[in-house]
Parts: sequence; C-alpha cells; structure tokens
Amino acid sequence: MTQKNILFIMLDQLRADALSCYGNTVLGTPNIDRLANRGVKFNRCYVQGTSCGNSRASYYTGRHVRSHGATWNGWPNRLDELTLADHLAACDMSTYLMGKTHMKPDMAGMNRLGIEPQSELGRFLSNAGFGQGEHDDGLHTVGVAGGYGTGTPAYFEYLRKHGYAAKNPWVTHANAMQDEDGILRNGMFLKYGHLPARVDKVHSETAYTTDRAIEMIQHMGPQNWCLHVSYIKPHWPLAAPAPYHQMYRGMDLPQASKCASQKTNAHPIYQAFMDLPQSQTYAQDDYRNHALPTYYGLIKEIDDNLGRLFESLEQQGQSQHTMIVLTSDHGDFFGDHWLAEKDLFHDAVTRVPLLIMDPSPTADVSRGITCDDLVCAIDLVPTFVEWAGGEPQWHWLEGQSLLPILHQTAIINRACVVSECDYGVMNFAQDLGRSMHNARMTMLYDGRYKYVHCLGFKPMLFNLQEDPQEFSDLGRDTGYSAIRGQLSEQMLDWSAGLKNRVTVSQETFGKQLNKAEQVGILIGYWHQDDVPQAEQLEPEVPPN
Amino acid sequence: MTQKNILFIMLDQLRADALSCYGNTVLGTPNIDRLANRGVKFNRCYVQGTSCGNSRASYYTGRHVRSHGATWNGWPNRLDELTLADHLAACDMSTYLMGKTHMKPDMAGMNRLGIEPQSELGRFLSNAGFGQGEHDDGLHTVGVAGGYGTGTPAYFEYLRKHGYAAKNPWVTHANAMQDEDGILRNGMFLKYGHLPARVDKVHSETAYTTDRAIEMIQHMGPQNWCLHVSYIKPHWPLAAPAPYHQMYRGMDLPQASKCASQKTNAHPIYQAFMDLPQSQTYAQDDYRNHALPTYYGLIKEIDDNLGRLFESLEQQGQSQHTMIVLTSDHGDFFGDHWLAEKDLFHDAVTRVPLLIMDPSPTADVSRGITCDDLVCAIDLVPTFVEWAGGEPQWHWLEGQSLLPILHQTAIINRACVVSECDYGVMNFAQDLGRSMHNARMTMLYDGRYKYVHCLGFKPMLFNLQEDPQEFSDLGRDTGYSAIRGQLSEQMLDWSAGLKNRVTVSQETFGKQLNKAEQVGILIGYWHQDDVPQAEQLEPEVPPN
Repeated sequence: MTQKNILFIMLDQLRADALSCYGNTVLGTPNIDRLANRGVKFNRCYVQGTSCGNSRASYYTGRHVRSHGATWNGWPNRLDELTLADHLAACDMSTYLMGKTHMKPDMAGMNRLGIEPQSELGRFLSNAGFGQGEHDDGLHTVGVAGGYGTGTPAYFEYLRKHGYAAKNPWVTHANAMQDEDGILRNGMFLKYGHLPARVDKVHSETAYTTDRAIEMIQHMGPQNWCLHVSYIKPHWPLAAPAPYHQMYRGMDLPQASKCASQKTNAHPIYQAFMDLPQSQTYAQDDYRNHALPTYYGLIKEIDDNLGRLFESLEQQGQSQHTMIVLTSDHGDFFGDHWLAEKDLFHDAVTRVPLLIMDPSPTADVSRGITCDDLVCAIDLVPTFVEWAGGEPQWHWLEGQSLLPILHQTAIINRACVVSECDYGVMNFAQDLGRSMHNARMTMLYDGRYKYVHCLGFKPMLFNLQEDPQEFSDLGRDTGYSAIRGQLSEQMLDWSAGLKNRVTVSQETFGKQLNKAEQVGILIGYWHQDDVPQAEQLEPEVPPN
Repeated sequence: MTQKNILFIMLDQLRADALSCYGNTVLGTPNIDRLANRGVKFNRCYVQGTSCGNSRASYYTGRHVRSHGATWNGWPNRLDELTLADHLAACDMSTYLMGKTHMKPDMAGMNRLGIEPQSELGRFLSNAGFGQGEHDDGLHTVGVAGGYGTGTPAYFEYLRKHGYAAKNPWVTHANAMQDEDGILRNGMFLKYGHLPARVDKVHSETAYTTDRAIEMIQHMGPQNWCLHVSYIKPHWPLAAPAPYHQMYRGMDLPQASKCASQKTNAHPIYQAFMDLPQSQTYAQDDYRNHALPTYYGLIKEIDDNLGRLFESLEQQGQSQHTMIVLTSDHGDFFGDHWLAEKDLFHDAVTRVPLLIMDPSPTADVSRGITCDDLVCAIDLVPTFVEWAGGEPQWHWLEGQSLLPILHQTAIINRACVVSECDYGVMNFAQDLGRSMHNARMTMLYDGRYKYVHCLGFKPMLFNLQEDPQEFSDLGRDTGYSAIRGQLSEQMLDWSAGLKNRVTVSQETFGKQLNKAEQVGILIGYWHQDDVPQAEQLEPEVPPN
C-alpha cells in the first residue's frame, strides 16, 4: 500500500483576503497560490471559534465549541475528547506537531484519573493529542507578574546558539526592534513595526518552524504521518525581520472596511468591543496603516518559507502521496468595523482561507477550482480520516468530509455554519452584567443571513446578500422579526443535533437495536402468546 | 463537628400520584407520608431524562442530559464527568450505594486512558462514582440471546441460601409466579400480576435492599456518609410477594387519564409511542386495571420497608444528623394518554415525588410544607454539597441548591425546567426518518406551557393552565405561534447557558481575568505610554 501523509499547515490570525489567491493585490503569495492551483480553494470556510484556543480545539477535535467546551484560550480540552491524533491513529497514521496548538493540560482532570502529566499519556492528553514533535505556542512575553508562556521552548536555545544571547531571546531579539536612538523596543507596540526585528530572517520563528518541519519530514519513516506545521505568525507581535518589515511600506494598502453608521445605536456587546483599547488603536487609520505592512511582511515571509517546505517535500519524494492543507485559526479585524483582533463574527474574523491539495489522481478533476460551498474547520478531521482510508467516528465528529468536493462526486449541501464566542474573560463582561457562565454568543450563517444569538441580549443580524460588508445590524429591525424567528429555530435545531452521546459508537448503538426482547425484556405484554417471536423464555423450573 | 449524613432514597418508575402524601386515596404510604410531614414536599419536581439511565445520570452528575450525554439506558457517562461521589468527597463525605444505578462503564474510554476496569478507579468510574457498596440493577432477565443484566448479583446467592434454589432465582422465584395449574409463569407478563411472586416478602428484592442498607448504616463509621438506597421496584416485572400482590385488588382504582381526541391528528412521534405494543396493552383498561394493583402493592411493600429503615436509623442514633431524601427517576404512564412506560414528557412521567427532610434546627421552619416552586433532579447535587458544608462546583453543576427552601430563606425563582428524550433506539425511529444521531426531543416547562422541541418535526405544546391533563397538543395551532416562538427562544437561551467549559473552575477563571497585560500580553497598543498601568516590561538588554 502506498504511504499516505498529510501536511496540515496552519497560520495564526491570517485573514483570507491577505493572500493573493484570495484577491489581495498588494501582497503576492506565489507559493500558497501554487497550492491553490494544485488543489481546491474554499471560498466560504468558517471557523467554529473566534479566538485561537477555541478555534483550534474545534480543528483538532472535529467538534463545535459547544461540544468540546474549550471555549477560550487556555481552557483545556476535556480528557476524554478524541482529537485528530486519536482519529488518525485508528487508521494507522501517526500525528506530529511543529509549532503552536494553544492547548493546555487539564491538570485537575488528570489528577482525578491518576494520570501523570509527564507520562507519555499525560503529554498526549496535555496537548490535545500532539504528544509527538515540538510544541511552541510562541508568545513568550514577560510582564510584571511573570511570563505568559509555559516552559522554555527549544527556540530559545536555538537563538542563543546562533548568537542571540539573552535570558529570553524571543523577547529581546525575535520580537524586539532597535529604534533610531539605539533603544531596544518591545515588538508588542505597533509604533515600531517599521523597524526590523532583531533577528536574521534565517533565524526567525517562521524560519525555525520551517527548518524543524523539514527536518521532521526528512526523518519520517515509512509510517503514514500527519504533520501539523503550525506557524505562530502573522499573529502579533508585529515584528518582522528584514527585509519583510518594509516590503509593503508606502504601498497602496486596502482601506479598513468600516462605516460611521456602525457607531450609532450599536449592539451593547459590539459597542463594548469597539471600546476596547486595541480597537481604539486600530480604528485610527494612521496606526492601522502603520501596522498592516508588517502583517503583510510576516505573511510574505511565511509564503517564502512554505516554498522551501514544499520544495523539500518534493525532494524527499513525498509530494505524490502527501495531502497538503493550509488554513488559519481565525482572521483579524485590523481596523475593519472599528475593531481590532478577533472575537465577534464578521467575515474578517470567521471566514478563513482553506486550501486542500489531494495528490491522488481521483482529485485531478478539481485542481485549481474554487468552491463556494459553506464548509468549516470541523470538516478537516473527517476529511483526513477518509483520506487516510478510515471510517470517521461519527458519534464524535460534527463536520463533514470534504473528499466529495475534492473528487467532485458531490457538493456539500450544508444549510448553515455555526461559530461561537465566550467573552467571559473580557474585562467588559461584568459591566454588561455577564457572569463567567453566560457571556456567550453563537453565530449561525446560512449563506445569506448571519444571525448572532447573544445570551441576555437582543440578537445581531446581517444580511450579507444586500450588505456584504456587514455594516448594518438588523437584529432589532422590526421588519426582520420573521427572519430572525426562522434563524433562531434553525439554531435550536443545530443545538439539539450536536453529538453529546460520545461514549456510544455506531456499532454499539446498532447492537442495542431490537435487542431487548431477545434478552428477556418483555415490556408491557399481557401474556406470552402476545410476544411476536418466540423470544421469551419461560422461567426455568427449579430443581426442587 | 457533628456528623452529617445523607440517606438518598430512589424508587424506580414511581409516579408521584401513587403516594398518599401526593393525593392517592387508594394506597396509603404512611412512612413516606411521615417523611413528608417532617420535611418539605416538592409538588413540581421534574426529572431531566425520561428513562432510567438518562434521568439517573442527571441526578448523579447534577447536569442536564444535553451536558452529560448519557442519553439513554446503558449509554455510559463520560469518564471525566464528576458525579455525586466526587462532589461529596470534596466536602469529606463518602458515598455508598445499595441497589440500582443503571450506569454502565465506558470501556473504550478506559482503554484509551489506560484505566483497568477492575481497579479501584475503574470500579469508581464504571458506576458513576458508586464504587462502594452493593450494585444491583435488578432486571436479571434471560432471553433467547442471553441475559440482560451484567454479572451475578449477591442477591442470587442470598436467595439460594434461603432455599430458593435455581440457576437464576431472580427469574425463577423473585419475579415468577405459579399459576392455578401449577405452571411457572414469567413475571414480565401482566396477566399473572394477581398471583404472588414466588418469594416470601422477607426475601424480596425490596426487603433484601432494605436489609442490606440497614446493615450498611450499622457498620458506618464516624465519617460523614451519603447512602444511596436505590430500589428496583415498583419498576416491572410487576411481581409482588404476598400479601402485596392482592392488597389493592378490587378496589376503586383511579382511571387512566386519556381522551379520545388525543388519537386524532396526533403528532407523529406521539402516534409512534401510542402504537408501541406496550402502549396497546395498557390502553386496554382491563389489562391496565389488572396491573395497577400490583404496582400499588410493590409501592406499599417499599413503604413498609422504609418504616424499618427509618426505625433502624433512629435506633442507630443517626436520625438527628441525617438528611433524608426520597424521589423517583421518572414516573409511568400506566395507560394515561394511551401510553405505557415512560419517555415523552407528560406529568405522569416527568413529574416525580421529591421529599427532603433536613434534620437541622434551621429547617424547622419548613417542616410539613408543600413547595410549589419548579425544582428538578439536578438540584440534588448542589443541595447535598451545600448541606455537607461544601461549595458547589458551579462550573459543572446546572441545578440550584434547595437549601433556601428548606430553610425558608428564599424561593427558587426558576423560569423553567427542561427534560430530554433520545428515542433513537426505539424501533420506530427509523420509520420516522431518524438516525441514531437526531432522534431527539427537548421539553421546556415554564409552569404554564410545556413546549416540546422535536428535531425534524413540528413541536408539541400543552397549556397546563387551561388543560392540566395535557390532552390538547397546541404544537400546530396557529393561534399559539407567538407563544411557541417565545418558548423556542427560551429553549435556545437554555441551550446556550449550559455548562460546557467544565475544565475551568471559578478560581482558575478568576485568575485569568485582567491578567494578560501583567504577563506582557499588550495587544494593540501603539506605544508603551499608552499602557494604562506600568505593566509592560521593556525588552531586556542583552549581555553582549
């Protein structure tokens, strides 16, 4: 049997429209575009969570945020959630990681079940199944109360070995700049985005991640593998090494997509997001336009590195049996809608690029096509499992396999996609009268309407057919009450159809059907003659 | 500190209206009534699941069926679900079992996590935390394809020791009758309910359960305990030992609550339930009225045995510090609405008796009162935890503590109760076009309207204020569309507020608040001067 591999590439906080294959005219991403030409470009792929942790948990479990429960960054997956690694192991494929997952261990859960966090199982469970490879979530910031990251990444030692001496070379070099006065500057501040990061481009996080991924591929054996190459960039800090820091400076950048009317009578939650300091910064075009070239530079840097990665795969003779997938965990408002960052459900955040290149001849029919079907992050696990030759475990998985699109055997007739946001940790949640338990929003998009259920508040509603820029919130427009009622019903149906009975496989379920009478459970029969088949057993005559 | 104990008594398939303290005029249950007089009688307690397994999983986890996922009989709890035993262990109370739980082990999950099913942890997880005591689910039936139960209960050996020789004395003696011709009859058939079970009343399942519970209490140490005494009766087989088999025969029994109009234009799911063989049997008054006295006899037998249990508790000097709780996992249609058994959401099934006697002086204010607040099964875990002096783990628990009612410090201002039914294993599910994943109904009752969301079908609706007998389904009545819309919205809110983020305690959550900037996560600031407090750290100057 031919080896089958999956190269599952994720960029962090990448907007779809930042890629030239998705229409960007400033920034050219030829290597990513080439992947699009060799595979299928999905034009309407939506993530299930609006920030890193919850979105990734959905990518890795193939389940909605409502189901896996890791609703925000740093909230651990449940220990018994199956992840990509479990699903692929069941079809003889080993899963490896290079880079970010944003997953955290459930220490209380492991303690209860007597699982040692440092054991092989403990490491597997601590990182959502990515127990093999190298885990580096980036973001090794330091503040007055200590550091954000956990552990010391191998990248620290790598940098020191290459002459970047420092206690924390991620802060001091890879994500710092030296200003015109020779003063070191923190790459977290947008002001310094026009200066090069204090790291050579061959030693940047992106280059390091790529180098390590190439090494891993070189050392893979004949076993089928799935390698998750998960770049921390273009996520902030917006610090790009030369020449990427200035490559797009002074160019004719796309303007922020925003409208003054959005500030009038805004939904309370939307207003709270607009009021955030980061939104206030990005709402200022000067600041935003100073930051965007750095963001583009970081993407260009990744595209260049992906060229190396793809070339290495080719040289290793792996291209012909490796599916390549490229996507993002969510986008970035970057000033659109007077907002920064993520959360909320506008296309700038929830619509992500998704490219899938299936090398098999059956996929030749779809090379270079653009697919406008509604698809989503949770579709990847079943797609991978089917491609690896396995049977998706549908008692867990809530997405759909995309193979029918890749092989052009069917369209994905999905009625809607759903995305969720738990804003409980936002500072404004309490001001809005929300507790840690009920700061929840759920968005349902049916391809025309985007309906956002906001627990404790009126909903939001956007008509993307008439208002593709999502400027006009119809959530309180009396003319749309019938539409809202229908979408609310659809969301209720969605919630009732989620896969909560995860301990029962299809096989187990099937065995239970029509079984009762055969094991003597004869409910409500008047007399033995009433039992349809001879399935009852008379009481045994006792020996005495 | 005074010892604190909880005696948590559950009857199986007990209708509230079968107890004299809930208005039954045929059957006297003086021991249960005395408990009601010493405590609080809850008049509107609803279960969260409509059959044994799912309802009990909600009682034991304090969570809705949607959340714990054990949606039907025999579907295991998730391994990481905390149960009563976990919650009480956290407040220094040990949990014991005598009798039924209907819980099953998640073997696949234990295998994945390397947990040996026969280890102490494995036994704990296999039975929803009831690892101590004696587990006996009853229902040791045998059919052409083998037995229903798992393992050999201690009760078999007990029966044999007392002269009931047989390979399966549960089938041959405790739940069999000898007819007028000397032929042994299977107690599963209603026809033989007028004959005494082939077991002396001192050796019946009910007596045995009581004896063993009394022994357990006698041997409890000074450690706080919660003992779950869980009777298998009055659940079928309707086989009662003398004299209980004939105690209520020929009496003026309450008639089945049903109406010919219910059969006209019935909701497809309701129709399918009416069409079941057991419903057809119970819809015949002769059959139903032959079975009801046996059901009553079994309840009377439990009441008599509870007298012994309470007396023993008194003799052991435990009454003054033991909270006593009595409830049922669900009711029984017993011919009401042309139905048998359970599932669906009429009061006959979802409304259960709940009596709570708190022995502490603070509860003296509530002795003998009837509480009409909407309460539910999932309220018991937080009630027990608070009574044991602990802090309920609200990141798991979805009910409310009832202590404010017991101590008359507040009313439970609950907007609605919710109950669920997964009818996927019913033979008719496929005929209705339902798969194993979407045969779901959810009922919301706000004290006036009972709204039943039926995935794939129109809803059901009952106005209990005008139609307390629930004869008239308004689910397709155009006059009620606004009401249905409101109830649907309320159900959507309920679903969005469920506790899915179970890996994050309140303490962990609190630590995350306002923490980002203190660990150097400075999102979207233009310059260090913009950071409100001096919470940023400049990059360290490297040593070279």
